[in-house]
Order: sequence, then structure tokens, then C-alpha cells
Amino acid sequence: MSEVYASRRKRLRDRCNAGGSTAALISRPANVRYLAGAAPKAAVLLLGRREEEDVLVCPGPPEDRPGEGRPDEQLRTHALPHAGGDPAVAAADILTAEGGDSLAVEEHHLTVARHRALRSVAPRLRLADLASAVEQLRVVKDEEEISCLRVGAEIADQALGELLESILVGRTERHLALELERRLVDHGADGPAFPTSVATGPNSGRPGHRPTDRRVEEGDFLSVCLGATYRGYRCEIGRTFVIGTSPADWQIELYDLVFAAQRAGRESLAPGAAYRDVDRAARQLLDSAGYAAGLPALTGHGVGLEIDEDPQLTPAAMGKLDACVPVTVEPGVHLPGRGGVRIDDTLVVRPEADGGPELLTITTKELLAL
Amino acid sequence: MSEVYASRRKRLRDRCNAGGSTAALISRPANVRYLAGAAPKAAVLLLGRREEEDVLVCPGPPEDRPGEGRPDEQLRTHALPHAGGDPAVAAADILTAEGGDSLAVEEHHLTVARHRALRSVAPRLRLADLASAVEQLRVVKDEEEISCLRVGAEIADQALGELLESILVGRTERHLALELERRLVDHGADGPAFPTSVATGPNSGRPGHRPTDRRVEEGDFLSVCLGATYRGYRCEIGRTFVIGTSPADWQIELYDLVFAAQRAGRESLAPGAAYRDVDRAARQLLDSAGYAAGLPALTGHGVGLEIDEDPQLTPAAMGKLDACVPVTVEPGVHLPGRGGVRIDDTLVVRPEADGGPELLTITTKELLAL
Repeated sequence: MSEVYASRRKRLRDRCNAGGSTAALISRPANVRYLAGAAPKAAVLLLGRREEEDVLVCPGPPEDRPGEGRPDEQLRTHALPHAGGDPAVAAADILTAEGGDSLAVEEHHLTVARHRALRSVAPRLRLADLASAVEQLRVVKDEEEISCLRVGAEIADQALGELLESILVGRTERHLALELERRLVDHGADGPAFPTSVATGPNSGRPGHRPTDRRVEEGDFLSVCLGATYRGYRCEIGRTFVIGTSPADWQIELYDLVFAAQRAGRESLAPGAAYRDVDRAARQLLDSAGYAAGLPALTGHGVGLEIDEDPQLTPAAMGKLDACVPVTVEPGVHLPGRGGVRIDDTLVVRPEADGGPELLTITTKELLAL
Repeated sequence: MSEVYASRRKRLRDRCNAGGSTAALISRPANVRYLAGAAPKAAVLLLGRREEEDVLVCPGPPEDRPGEGRPDEQLRTHALPHAGGDPAVAAADILTAEGGDSLAVEEHHLTVARHRALRSVAPRLRLADLASAVEQLRVVKDEEEISCLRVGAEIADQALGELLESILVGRTERHLALELERRLVDHGADGPAFPTSVATGPNSGRPGHRPTDRRVEEGDFLSVCLGATYRGYRCEIGRTFVIGTSPADWQIELYDLVFAAQRAGRESLAPGAAYRDVDRAARQLLDSAGYAAGLPALTGHGVGLEIDEDPQLTPAAMGKLDACVPVTVEPGVHLPGRGGVRIDDTLVVRPEADGGPELLTITTKELLAL
């Protein structure tokens, strides 16, 4: 694995050196993990002008924490001697001692106070903005990363499948969510990829609904959204079911509509497809059915070391999909007071020659009556 | 409740106005919640020069999310018309439109990129640093806040008590942690206050240990640290047990030592006591027993809307305790390869006339053999 991290750092170094040789300070935890194999709490990565200068600066000795990855063994580690210091400041010290004179920082992550501390400890260091260079490297995944997502999706499918076999009526949203999270861990997840959402009756279909003490009732829509973290990689699946034997007409109608919208979104995934076109594919059926006003800002997003990564599939997004980019497709409709439907898959963009988009979350999308 | 939030905002306003009339932008979520009653995701609070100018700026319509509080009804709310905008930038716009010319921001929370966006949208606004003014207001709690902590501590005591009645040998750290978290929610917690730590055998006594798949064995130390969030307030309890009928001599010895250190820390809590003296009280017995080198940087900390707040009880901390400050006292010793002991309580500092420190976490601290 070590070469993977070194080669990621090399790609970033090439980018930094393209605009004049400069060192970079990576502080955002998912970016540190991507480049160093692990992100011990508050650790930062100093990317030097040459590989030998790279160093992971930790507030204390890095601990071995399964699920959080292991630091690349080829990478130098520096542990602060005193607890309470800022590893970013220590990294600036190291760079200055080694003769560095410019440093690109993640201005979208570093606070104003830390930035000022850097300036004050190393006044001669020119500070620049690394912007989202590491996030951009992270968009396209390698097969190792995709296989972590695939395992995570299998785990989420298993947890969801088991829940569907149990009795649901009378149980609260909170209990169902906790049970799903326990099952994720039972099946080998590091943990849930994000707080599990279980929404019943009038809550169903609300994006990001936090589980309440409402109990599942006959006739409810039940929408569930969960994901597993596996070796740091986070996936997402969302399904909506009806409780009882016969869904009402409005339920069937709404479900069919969202299902068709979600399928259109999935089918539009291809290398070269514009983000906004994928969004439009998923959105336009819902728009023309009269639901334009209540729709969420996005119909999908990238996943990886974070659950919400680039790209963002929105009407205004700029950019095009590449092969090997995992994204969610998750349109939904929520009717205030009545409930609604969300259907959410994680897929990997693949060229048509390879069979088109690879569906990672394979739980059925038929409307099940439970 | 509404007057509570208005009076907190007034105290902050008085502070801001003391150094020349200025508005303030509060972005750190726990600070927003403290002053506005709720912190919808990404919302910021603009504190005007007069109460009528205060406004909670949210990225979208604030949702009713139990457990996350309700926005103060007296407080004006402004929802951004377009998703994806930065509420901090919108707040600067509002202030400028109302004739404001200076704004104190939380430089320890705001990123460099957001700070720059503020400067660019409102170039004539003088930006200053609010520093940790709100965090300082939050240190001393009112009785309403303390009663939330008290309920949270009761919930944690219940969850822990139930676990102790079950069979432990053969179960993994991860399962025990998940079961504790489920029980917290069963008993009415919003959720865990922080990731529950369960550490067995050689892992026992490690501060912040993340649960692994190691199973509980006869003869192990078992250390558990958990807490409940109740109406946003977070408490903490930690206990260490032995598994089996007869603890080994080294286990009894180590336990007695940590117990004595923790008691010394608890007994030193009083209004006017220096933070560092409380730390020393808890630390010195462990130091003189030869464990100085391996001790964590702090022996306790404040709790409230966040699990780790001011004050920090460390050897170098400046400042003195006030009445009505809730803190943890949590010394511990971990012997690499063998395990260790941590004992952790949440207490509220009270004057001696009121009976001295109020212990919120009342689970026994006898060495139980389970």
C-alpha cells in the first residue's frame, strides 16, 4: 500500500511544483488520510519539495487505531513533545528549519486563528492557498478504493435486508436506526458512514431526517437511509417501503414517479456526462410532475473517505464525470404532512464498454409491502 | 426559555460594546445554540448593536429537529433563498445594509476562505476577532443547564448499571459499546455525548480508546467511558471493573491508587480553586507512584453543550473555578501491554455552604468484580 500513498503525494507535489516550487500543509483530516494512510487526531501532513521531506506531524505518538488506517511506513513521522501544541505550527517550524520559504495551506479548512499563528511563528514564510487540490485528486478512485466501497455497500445491503425480515410495526424510528447501526458493525463495518436515517409516515422521504420516537404504523411509508464505513470509505443506500399489505393509490403513484426519476439519473451516468445533466435527468420527471419547488438542492454527490464529496450533482454544477467516480443518485419527494419517497443508490461511473455504471447497492428497488 | 437566550445575547452585546460599538458574527455551532436556542446546520447568528438587530441566518428554512433545540421565537430568522450560499456572507450583507461598519468574528472557528469571502462581499466592514468570548460566557452554567446535565448523568448511570448486570465474558468491545449507546437512547438521551469507549485487558485505562473486536476475558480489567447528550448537554462517566472473582494484587494496587487520585481531585473542587491546583491534586499521587511520564495532558475538563469545554484542568492552565462550573475529574494510568484504570466523574463546583461539589455520576467507584 505504501507506494499508493507515495504516488498520491507525488501527484500533489507535481501540481504544487507546477506553479513554482512550494511546500504544502494538508490539514483536512480526509485529505491527510488520503495522502498518509491515516489521519491521527489533529495530525497534519507537510508535503515537502521532495519526497524525503514529507512528514506527518502528530500532536502525540500516533496510536494504532483499527478502522482509522495506518500511517504509511515510508513516511517520516514527527510527534510533538508537548501536548497542546498545534501540529500546523510545528510543521511550519520544520519547513523553515529545512530552508523552505513558501507554503500552500488549505484555506478552506484552516481557521483564521491558526493561519495567524503560522504567520507569526514563521514570518518569512510566504503563505499561499492550496485550495481544494487534494479534494480534486480524490474524485477519481482507484480499484482498491472502489473495492472498499463495494464491501461497504454489501454490508449496508445485508443490514437492510435483515431489518426487512423483522417485525416493524410498533417500533420507533430511533430503535430501527440503532438496530441498523448495530448490524452494520456486526457485519464488519468500521461504523456507520453517517447518522442512519429512519423516517416513518409523515416523516418519510425527508432528506436527512433524524429519527424520532414515532412508531411505525400500518399504511406508513417507511424510508431508510444508511451506509457503512469500511476501511475509511463511506457508501450510502436509501430505500422506501410501505407498511401493510396494500399501498394506497397515491403511494404507488409517488413511488413509481421517484423510481423512474432515480432510474433516469442512474442511466445518465457515463464518463463525460456533465454533472448538471445527470442532475437534470433525475430531476426533470419530478419537476414536470409539479414537485419542482420542494426538491432538495442536489440529486446526488460523490462518496469516498467522506460521505459528501465532489462532484455535487446540482443544476448549477460545472464539470463532467470521469470513469471510476463513485456517486449517489438519490432523488426524492416529500409531501409535508403526508410523507414521501426517496430512493438512493451508490454507483461507480464506468464506460459503456465495461458495462456502464456499476451499481454497488443492490437491494431491490421494487415497492415492497412489509 | 426565550428570555434566557435574550439575556445571554445581552451579556455578549455588553462585552462587544465595551470595546466600541460593534456587531458580532457567531459561527461555532455550540455558541450559536447557546445564544439562539438551536443551531440549524451551518446557521450563524448575527448579533447586532441592539436586540432588534439580532438575526439567525440559516442556509434554508430551519427544520424542527428534536434534540437539537428550537430557535428562540423572539429572534428574527433569515433563510437564504438559494441553497449553497454561505450564511456568514449573507449576515455581512445584512449588517452592511443596516449601516453597520464593524464586525467581530470567531477567528478560531471561521476558515481563512470564509473570512476572505466576508472581506470581499463587504470591503468596508472592519473585521475584528471575537475570540472565545462566547466560550467564556458558557463556562458558568445556570440551574436549567445543570439540570440537563443531571438528567444526562442519570441516563448514563442507568445504561452502565444495566450493562453490569449482563454477562460480559466473550463479548467484544465494539458490541458492548454499541449496547451502551442503544441503552442511552432507550433511556431518553438525544444520543451518546461522544463515541463510547470500552477497553478490555491490555487496552483498559487508555484514554479515548476506540472499541476493537477484542473479547472480554477472565482476569481482564474492563474500563468503560460513556456519556449521554440530553437537550444538547453532554456529561461523562468512566469506570473500571475486573472480570472474574478475584482481582490480582497489581490490579487492586493500581485501582486503589487511581481511586485515591480521583478522590483527591474531586475533593479539591471549590469556587476559587486554581485549575492547576485541581490538576495537581489529582496528578500528584500518580506522579509520586512513578507514573508521571505516561499521564495524559489533562486530568479533567469542563462539559456542557460540548463534551470538552473550558476549563482545561492541566498543569499549565491559568484561572480559577467558579461555582456552577461542571467539570470532569478523570485521572488514569495505563501500563502498555498490561492495561490500566481510569475513573471519571462529572461534578458541579458548589460552595462548601451548599454541600461542596455536586456529584452527577453516582455509579459506585468500588472495585467491582463482574
